[in-house]
Amino acid sequence: MSSIHPVILCGGSGTRLWPSSRKDKPKPFLPLVGERTLFEATLDRCADSARFAPVTVVTGAAHLPLVESQLGDARQAGIIVEPAAKNTAAAIALAAARLPEDAVMLVCPSDHHIADGRAFCEAASAAAKLARNGWLVSFGIAPQSPETGFGYIRRGDPLEGGFKVDRFVEKPNLETAKGFLADGGYSWNGGIFAFRAVSFMDELRRHRPDIAAGVEAAVAAGRSEGCRFHPDADSFSAIKGDSIDYAVMENTDRAAMVPVDMGWSDIGNFQALRDARTGDADGNRVSGNVELVDCRNILAQSDGPRISVIGLSDVAVIVDGDEILVTTMEGAQKVGKLKGAANQ
Amino acid sequence: MSSIHPVILCGGSGTRLWPSSRKDKPKPFLPLVGERTLFEATLDRCADSARFAPVTVVTGAAHLPLVESQLGDARQAGIIVEPAAKNTAAAIALAAARLPEDAVMLVCPSDHHIADGRAFCEAASAAAKLARNGWLVSFGIAPQSPETGFGYIRRGDPLEGGFKVDRFVEKPNLETAKGFLADGGYSWNGGIFAFRAVSFMDELRRHRPDIAAGVEAAVAAGRSEGCRFHPDADSFSAIKGDSIDYAVMENTDRAAMVPVDMGWSDIGNFQALRDARTGDADGNRVSGNVELVDCRNILAQSDGPRISVIGLSDVAVIVDGDEILVTTMEGAQKVGKLKGAANQ
Repeated sequence: MSSIHPVILCGGSGTRLWPSSRKDKPKPFLPLVGERTLFEATLDRCADSARFAPVTVVTGAAHLPLVESQLGDARQAGIIVEPAAKNTAAAIALAAARLPEDAVMLVCPSDHHIADGRAFCEAASAAAKLARNGWLVSFGIAPQSPETGFGYIRRGDPLEGGFKVDRFVEKPNLETAKGFLADGGYSWNGGIFAFRAVSFMDELRRHRPDIAAGVEAAVAAGRSEGCRFHPDADSFSAIKGDSIDYAVMENTDRAAMVPVDMGWSDIGNFQALRDARTGDADGNRVSGNVELVDCRNILAQSDGPRISVIGLSDVAVIVDGDEILVTTMEGAQKVGKLKGAANQ
Repeated sequence: MSSIHPVILCGGSGTRLWPSSRKDKPKPFLPLVGERTLFEATLDRCADSARFAPVTVVTGAAHLPLVESQLGDARQAGIIVEPAAKNTAAAIALAAARLPEDAVMLVCPSDHHIADGRAFCEAASAAAKLARNGWLVSFGIAPQSPETGFGYIRRGDPLEGGFKVDRFVEKPNLETAKGFLADGGYSWNGGIFAFRAVSFMDELRRHRPDIAAGVEAAVAAGRSEGCRFHPDADSFSAIKGDSIDYAVMENTDRAAMVPVDMGWSDIGNFQALRDARTGDADGNRVSGNVELVDCRNILAQSDGPRISVIGLSDVAVIVDGDEILVTTMEGAQKVGKLKGAANQ
């Protein structure tokens, strides 16, 4: 049985975790949950050579030094350096165009947390099996709550090891999300995909021929430099980017999904970060120099000065360099709207 | 008509305002409400030479440099440097023993805020008039809320410009305090007093002869150094200290009070500090680099790093040097209990 080829996307900057995450130290490269950074943990999950081929990392030039400093011992097929940010369809196509046609790709964001690595591997194997039969497979994450910040996948007819996708649903309102949860037939779309390189490129050519052509031109005129591959900047920069969901998954007739319950979180805000960490008896999660009095379900972290908190519940206190953020868990959604957060 | 002799006590350290107030920059010497420090504002209130004689400041050696640097243009009779902290009865007695017997003293803490200086002056004149007739006069502050952190004064028979004191009441519980407020016959004991020097010393000799004798010995063996007076350390240090309330006011038959409504606050915690400041349309009080989103009745102050607060009400966020405090307004009472606050 052939290996699964992990393709790790290092794109997003994670402004909703400002000031922990900033332009010059973006979310994937921070040790947000455990000792390892989210990127390192993503590499760790794909380290088993019996199951996985060497990884391909797709990243921008700005993050390249961080990627290379955190690759460690990871077996790598190479790093593809995007000349511009053109969203996920083009980023994934760069990897697809460089891999053998029959290679089964496993596309993984680098800024998510997965508590149960074993469940991840089992789902990867099930997805790979479907992919080898020509399916474009989404991981369907078992939903834990009526989240309005995620897209959902509605399960269709069963396949061996998974299901056809009945339809993809964009971010719902709260009432709709509650209905999805009660229905039981919906999963979160976690942005993890498996397909053969050729299947993806065929569908991209069918639904977004402009992106496919732009990527193929950029790869044809690209150049290698050690283990780095630099697509041609002019061709790639001319692409009108789109997400894999809009460009391919919502249009293809070959969409499938594998259900998986693996303690997944996109660590999309401080509430999610708190919930991904293990709390003490009062549900508090602290790191750094923190003193709490009469507090419950607090997230408090400092990279220097001491934080003292008295009498609060469900609040995040984040101290990072010259910025101090204090927010309710509900307000954690709005961090990206702060004046400072947008520019840093 | 003879002048009123202000006696300003610079004692307390204000640990309940930690980390704003610390051992090396105590509460009286901080600009907590306006541009002027609480000590400077206390001097300002007594600056009118038509009404007030030069001030006498009683302080410890540790605060002497701060006192001298903030005296500015204040007309001063002198600074009495306490060799040890022996509570208010002894501190006031030091000044009484140094002033002419007939001098009317006005004892003022240096760490309170008074919004209405004119009401203060009028009450001082009324109190001085009673003092000249041999009364020991407390300012009876119009109570604004059922505070459990203050002592209360129950009004007795009327006198010209004031009332006899029926009794002093120690810090009540909440239910009792609510009863006091509803009754209307109770005032807060704000620690401001007026009496002739001889009246105070007579009553101290009667009720606490040990303190009176210790102070008289310390003054007799003391030495002057410019405008500073240093009582004899051995005599003074041997005193068993007590508050003016316990030592004199609760025991004398000559206790009177003048009612006053002057926007008084002891700035006893961050809630009181917030309430003493003028808020914006949402009731927020900020100083320094602060950004608020969806906040109400917040107190936020930083001496450096930016503070961003989202979605909170009735919370204080205090950033001072290497300490960050986040507390509910109720929790503000407990600041003194923090491990760090006790030692700094």
